Amino acid sequence: MSKLYVVGLGPGAPALMTAQAREAMEAADVLCGYTAYIKLVEDLYPEKEKFATPMMGEVERCKKALELASSGKNVAMVCSGDAGVYGMAGLILELAEDPEVEISVVAGVTAALSGGAVLGAPLTHDFCVISLSDLMTDWALIEKRLRCAAMGDFGVALYNPSSKKRHDYLQKACDIMMEAGKAPETVCGWVRNIGREGECCRILTLAELREEQVDMFTTVFIGNSKTREINGRMVTPRGYGEKYGVK
Amino acid sequence: MSKLYVVGLGPGAPALMTAQAREAMEAADVLCGYTAYIKLVEDLYPEKEKFATPMMGEVERCKKALELASSGKNVAMVCSGDAGVYGMAGLILELAEDPEVEISVVAGVTAALSGGAVLGAPLTHDFCVISLSDLMTDWALIEKRLRCAAMGDFGVALYNPSSKKRHDYLQKACDIMMEAGKAPETVCGWVRNIGREGECCRILTLAELREEQVDMFTTVFIGNSKTREINGRMVTPRGYGEKYGVK
Repeated sequence: MSKLYVVGLGPGAPALMTAQAREAMEAADVLCGYTAYIKLVEDLYPEKEKFATPMMGEVERCKKALELASSGKNVAMVCSGDAGVYGMAGLILELAEDPEVEISVVAGVTAALSGGAVLGAPLTHDFCVISLSDLMTDWALIEKRLRCAAMGDFGVALYNPSSKKRHDYLQKACDIMMEAGKAPETVCGWVRNIGREGECCRILTLAELREEQVDMFTTVFIGNSKTREINGRMVTPRGYGEKYGVK
Repeated sequence: MSKLYVVGLGPGAPALMTAQAREAMEAADVLCGYTAYIKLVEDLYPEKEKFATPMMGEVERCKKALELASSGKNVAMVCSGDAGVYGMAGLILELAEDPEVEISVVAGVTAALSGGAVLGAPLTHDFCVISLSDLMTDWALIEKRLRCAAMGDFGVALYNPSSKKRHDYLQKACDIMMEAGKAPETVCGWVRNIGREGECCRILTLAELREEQVDMFTTVFIGNSKTREINGRMVTPRGYGEKYGVK
């Protein structure tokens, strides 16, 4: 019986990894992952065997990880953020066939949480996580979800808000959410390079966000109707103020 | 300048804490928190000063943490799961007044992620997190969000699905989501006591979930229309299957 761990690394810095993620990588004979994520753990485990594939190589990467585990090796498939949220846990479980490979999913801090902490507390109340990548999802479905998130006055974390081919997707997403009821003055924020060198963030309105140029290393946060900027932080109240008359 | 860390512990087990959470608690002179969460860290830091308040004592707890920090002590306010998601980061930032207290939010693994890992990969695609507690949120707003989450075919993690006073809320939530378009055969799951003694989980349909009795230590997961049960795991595909013809 060999083990295949699907490991959420968090944003990349060792400080934001869980002890369980470290233990899984330590127990593994081979580390598999997207080239950029393997680089994140290269310094921690220089001696371990590695198998890396570039972006779009997800199916090959997961098949190889399962093969290696079937051959008797313990394998850690590393993912940035959480192992599940847009991560490899789903595909590994879809492709797994060998009952002699025991698959464990190790949760990690996804960008909605790590980026949220940088901005303050943008997701203290009900929220949605939506990816703007239409590589494997019809844009019509993404648009429907943006609309429903706005109608429900959810806080929203947007993943993959932009890429070279999708430079105007964030602008489109802002327009859709404003049409569906989010006010242009809704408090929003973005965080770039979370937990890594060059980390930076900005708090701005939804109308301003529409004009903002962000890249693929950025996570975007849209507040709900009660989100405020307090002392330079983005804060979505849980409701203590209204209930207990705080402030 | 003293420090106030608002720390997400994850579900409670040290294995699921981040290194940063441990460092923040180690740097603190005083640990503040809800009585049950202080118990989670009592064994790790028996020598540290503690300030605990029971449930509903959140405002008192945050004010005390800010007071202690203003008096020059370094303070860690511990929260289960993430520091932001239904956690104390929001209230601390709302109440903070002393510019001499530097507030840092330390993200943690929220139950949507830690519970998701136990079930498999239920939240691999866009998802919502919704609390069924109407203590500080009108039920009408919760109902609207459940409806919007169903209309958008989101995966959903439900927090606080039940309590003594709210024994039928999960049933009501299931009915609302079925009315709004979730099929009764939607694959769902629940996890109880995540990462703690007595951890257990079940995968079932939405129609079955409607009849299930769950408690306040349970997190509930509702799949999207593509979620499947695969080898006893709850899996929401990201879309590789459709795109690359896997399986």
